[in-house]
Amino acid sequence: MITANARAVFSPEGPFQPTTIERRELQPHDVLIEIKYAGICHSDIHTARGEWGPVQYPLVPGHEIAGIVRQVGSAVTKYAVGDRVGVGCMVDSCGECENCRKGEEQYCLNGHTGTYAAIDRYGQYTQGGYSTHIVVTEDFVVRIPDSIELDVAAPLLCAGITTYSPLRHWGAAPGKKVAVVGFGGLGHMAVKIAHAMGAEVTVLSQTLKKKEDGLRLGADHYYATSDPQTFEKLAGTFDLIVNTVSAQIDINAYLSLLALDGTLVNVGAPAEPLPVQVFSLIPHRRSFAGSMIGGIRETQEMLDFCAEHSITPEIEVISANQIDEAWERVLASDVRYRFVIDISTMGKE
Amino acid sequence: MITANARAVFSPEGPFQPTTIERRELQPHDVLIEIKYAGICHSDIHTARGEWGPVQYPLVPGHEIAGIVRQVGSAVTKYAVGDRVGVGCMVDSCGECENCRKGEEQYCLNGHTGTYAAIDRYGQYTQGGYSTHIVVTEDFVVRIPDSIELDVAAPLLCAGITTYSPLRHWGAAPGKKVAVVGFGGLGHMAVKIAHAMGAEVTVLSQTLKKKEDGLRLGADHYYATSDPQTFEKLAGTFDLIVNTVSAQIDINAYLSLLALDGTLVNVGAPAEPLPVQVFSLIPHRRSFAGSMIGGIRETQEMLDFCAEHSITPEIEVISANQIDEAWERVLASDVRYRFVIDISTMGKE
Repeated sequence: MITANARAVFSPEGPFQPTTIERRELQPHDVLIEIKYAGICHSDIHTARGEWGPVQYPLVPGHEIAGIVRQVGSAVTKYAVGDRVGVGCMVDSCGECENCRKGEEQYCLNGHTGTYAAIDRYGQYTQGGYSTHIVVTEDFVVRIPDSIELDVAAPLLCAGITTYSPLRHWGAAPGKKVAVVGFGGLGHMAVKIAHAMGAEVTVLSQTLKKKEDGLRLGADHYYATSDPQTFEKLAGTFDLIVNTVSAQIDINAYLSLLALDGTLVNVGAPAEPLPVQVFSLIPHRRSFAGSMIGGIRETQEMLDFCAEHSITPEIEVISANQIDEAWERVLASDVRYRFVIDISTMGKE
Repeated sequence: MITANARAVFSPEGPFQPTTIERRELQPHDVLIEIKYAGICHSDIHTARGEWGPVQYPLVPGHEIAGIVRQVGSAVTKYAVGDRVGVGCMVDSCGECENCRKGEEQYCLNGHTGTYAAIDRYGQYTQGGYSTHIVVTEDFVVRIPDSIELDVAAPLLCAGITTYSPLRHWGAAPGKKVAVVGFGGLGHMAVKIAHAMGAEVTVLSQTLKKKEDGLRLGADHYYATSDPQTFEKLAGTFDLIVNTVSAQIDINAYLSLLALDGTLVNVGAPAEPLPVQVFSLIPHRRSFAGSMIGGIRETQEMLDFCAEHSITPEIEVISANQIDEAWERVLASDVRYRFVIDISTMGKE
C-alpha cells in the first residue's frame, strides 16, 4: 500500500483534519500521481456534508486533480514517469456497456466510480484529491497540455468539462446565442469556452456585481435576473441556455428565453423538483435537459481546446489549512472564481 | 360574403345547434373549400368549453378538415377547382418572421392564426371545420393524395401531423426505440407512423385493454403503465418517448425510461406544471421537450408519407346530429380512434 497525506472531514460538520490514507499498490494499468493542485468544487461540500446521500467518514473530497506521474504499472502504455496529468470526477467505469463503448463513461450503465465517496472495483472506498498522491487506472487519466500551468489546470477537470460538454453537444458556435445562468466557478468557465467556440454569449446573473468581469472574460452581454425587464427583453432569444445554478430558479421564466428548438440544460441539480409548464416547452419546440461532466475522450479534447484558445479559470490558490475557510466562502459565493489547494502545503505534516 | 351551414356551441356548456356563418369573399390568394369531412379533436372540446382561455360564442370548432376546392381567387397558383385538399390547425401566419421563413409557421413569432377561435388578419373571428365551407389562403392548404379517402384524411391534419413532426424531428428510424404514451387518437397515429419510419415501437397505456389493436396497428410491444414492473423492466430503454396524454403523469418515472440522449416529447399540455427532478435528466443527458403540430411543408410531407405507406387513422364516421354524443365519448376515452363528422349530413338544414 502507498500512504498519502490528506485532509479529511470526520463528520458532516467537519472541520478538516490532517490524516493519512492508503492508496492501492499499482495494478498493471495503474499510474501513481503526485498531486500538485486540487480544485474546490461546490459538490465537494454537498457530498461531504451528506446532502446527496449518506457517505463514510473520514472522507477526503476533491475531483479536480492536477499532478505529475511518479510511477506506472507494468502494462501502462499511455503515460510515463514525469508526465503532467489530470484526474476528474471519475476514476473507473465498467468499460463494457453501450455508453462506455461510446466513450461516455460518465453515463456508464453500471455506474461510474466517483473519484471519492464511491466503492471501486477492488471494494475500496475511494478518496479524492485533497491529498498528496492518488492511484488511478490509466484510462481515467488525461494529459495536461504543456501550456497550461497545473494550478489552473485543476478546475478544468470538473468545472471545465462540465460546461464544455453541453456547449459542444448542443452546438455552441458562430451564429448561436448562448446564455449562461450564474457566474461562479462553472459559469465563468462556460463564458470563456462558449466565447472561444464563437457563440454570442450572455450572462444571466442575479445582480450586475460581476458584470465587468463577465465582459472582460468573454461575455457579449450581461443581465441581472433580479430585473423583470430582463425576461421581457430577452424572450425567445437563445439557442442554448446553460444553467449552472443548483438552487431553485423560476424554470418557466428561463424556458421562455429560448428560441425555436432551443435547449435549457442544467448542469447543477437542485434537490427539489422544478415545476415545468408544458406550455413553456410546446410553443417553440423547446427542450429542458441535463448534462453530467463529460467522457474521458471529451475531457482530453476539452484540455486541448483550452490550451489552443489559452483558456484557464480564474483562481485563488490557498494552503491546506485554509480549506474550511474556503468552503465557507464558496457557500457565500465569495470566490472569483475557483479555489485551488496548493497540495505542497500538506506534504510534510 | 359566402354563407355556410355550420354546427356551433353558443356557450361553454353547449349543446351544438345548427347555424349559418359568413365566410369572407375570396381574396386573390384564397380558395373556397367545400368541406366533406371534419375530425373531432380533444382540443376542440378544451377550447369550446373555455378551458384554454376565454372564447367568443357562437363557436364553430374543427381543425381536421378535408374537402374539395370549389372556387379560387384571381392569383391562386397552387390549386384548381376540383382539387382534393385539407386544412389543419392554422389558416395563416405572418409569413415574415424567422420561424415562418423556416417553414415552421406553427411557431410564428407573431402568432399563427388558429383555424377557429382566433382573430385573422382581416379582423374576423375564425370559425372551424364543423361547417360546409371554408375560405383559406392557398399557402395554408395542403393537397390530399389520391390514394387517401377524404374521411380518413381529415384526422391526419391534426392527429397525423402532431405525431409525425416530433417523430421526424427526433429521428424515429430503424434502430431507434420509440415509446408512445397513450393509445387514443394521437397515440394510434404515432404508432402507425413510427412503425412506418422503421422504429421499434412500444405502447405505454394505462391498461392492456387495447393491446390487440396496438400490436395489429404496428406496435412491437405493449405495456400497462398501471403495472409498476413496467417501469423497472423498461428503465433506460427508449431513444424517444412521445407523450400524447394531456393529463398529469408521473413525469420522472417516464423520464427514467429514456436511454442516453433520449427525449421525452409532450404533444399534449396538462394545465398543471409537471414537477421535473433534474436528477431524472442529468444521468443520461435526457431531454424533456414539447412539440406543436407541424409546418405546412411538413404537413404536406406527412400526407405524402402516409399515402406512400398506406397509413390512415382508424375512424368512426358520425352525422352532424351526433357531435354532442361523440364529445362525451371522447371525454370518456370511448372511441377507436377518431370521430369524423360527415359534413354532408349538415348541408341542407
